[in-house]
Amino acid sequence: MQFTSEQRLDDGVLEREFTLGEIPGTLWTPGSAAPAPLILMAHNNGLPKSASRLVARARYSAASGYAVACIDAAGCGDRPRSAADEQARADLHRAFQADEPVDEVFESIIGPLVENAVPEWRTTLDALLSLPAIGGPVGYSGWTAVGIRLAVAEPRITAAGFFAGGYVPRAQREEARQVTIPLLFLLQWDDEGNPRQRALDLFDAFGSKEKTLHANLGGHTGTPWFEVEDGNRFFGRHLK
Amino acid sequence: MQFTSEQRLDDGVLEREFTLGEIPGTLWTPGSAAPAPLILMAHNNGLPKSASRLVARARYSAASGYAVACIDAAGCGDRPRSAADEQARADLHRAFQADEPVDEVFESIIGPLVENAVPEWRTTLDALLSLPAIGGPVGYSGWTAVGIRLAVAEPRITAAGFFAGGYVPRAQREEARQVTIPLLFLLQWDDEGNPRQRALDLFDAFGSKEKTLHANLGGHTGTPWFEVEDGNRFFGRHLK
Repeated sequence: MQFTSEQRLDDGVLEREFTLGEIPGTLWTPGSAAPAPLILMAHNNGLPKSASRLVARARYSAASGYAVACIDAAGCGDRPRSAADEQARADLHRAFQADEPVDEVFESIIGPLVENAVPEWRTTLDALLSLPAIGGPVGYSGWTAVGIRLAVAEPRITAAGFFAGGYVPRAQREEARQVTIPLLFLLQWDDEGNPRQRALDLFDAFGSKEKTLHANLGGHTGTPWFEVEDGNRFFGRHLK
Repeated sequence: MQFTSEQRLDDGVLEREFTLGEIPGTLWTPGSAAPAPLILMAHNNGLPKSASRLVARARYSAASGYAVACIDAAGCGDRPRSAADEQARADLHRAFQADEPVDEVFESIIGPLVENAVPEWRTTLDALLSLPAIGGPVGYSGWTAVGIRLAVAEPRITAAGFFAGGYVPRAQREEARQVTIPLLFLLQWDDEGNPRQRALDLFDAFGSKEKTLHANLGGHTGTPWFEVEDGNRFFGRHLK
């Protein structure tokens, strides 16, 4: 893990860019010296780690005492796109424009993206836990599909907050029953591109004994800021 | 309003029983001297104000800086039951025992209970707001059916937390669209006696622009304690 830049924010949080092999990432750590619990954070569908909403959430969590890390998935954010990546995005765009069913196109894009992202997240987790600034335990926040796969594959993940507004491939919908860690599942009630019933069915399917659904009125990007605070309190119950 | 008994709790909260005409009530006020915002609190279906779960919630909210008041509905708790009340309860018991549909029995019991309770709550509110210990604004917590009726009829109610696990008469389901104050709606995902879809439909129907659903795994009485804390934070956003 190579740190390539750093800046100290006003509230003492240290924000560092890093690379780990081909993987670019950002790490936020709190100003205090004690080893912090860790939250792995990712946007649904491979949105970039530099997106302002993700950065705002990460900084807030770091200021609250968590180390937070995000990486870009292959073909996303700062990483080069292959011809196949470009073609897949063009297919998705065309399907949306033509108002065609997008499930199969999503399946062909997001399915492999999740499969490829999870080993990279595990490699990143190994590297992060070797840093003196990071203690544990480890939580996960954001991208539902990757979170399901990670929660099933990775015993170091002890609690997770998922945002319902993203495509969840069939493989992850099927393995949702195997997720048994405490969950907070966040749903926008009128999310334009993500059917509400599918999200409610997924919440129902999770195998966790402790699982909580928070649903708010409004569209995909309308999540109220108090949910970020609620997410922090959820992690406070499980990671501190 | 006549206070008939009082006790000072360890955390400074003053717990007082009162009567207002035929209405028996309990008022909890915080230890601090400043006039407090007020939460009207009631169990679904007319369960008594002395029930331990309600008392625990009321004491916690009072210790957090709210005045909290609860009254018994006519025929419930400390109030005398008429022959008709006894007959209605016997009908409900028989319907449950025989595994018969209980909606019509509930409708005949809870419908009038709500209609009669709301004027009493408004009279109580008048009396409470004349006390120096109580300032405002006013929130409502608990019994959904009474809360819907009150939120529509009573402009002094500015925010409400409803517990989904109780019978909501058709009249209140129909006027749910007229509820426009900020809402927190609390659902137990596997509530034995209260159909989940009916609760989700009710959440969908509320006319409020700010409404949040919290759903937790488990049966009717399994609401986790952290929801009481979340409820306090919801009121903190709207009553303080």
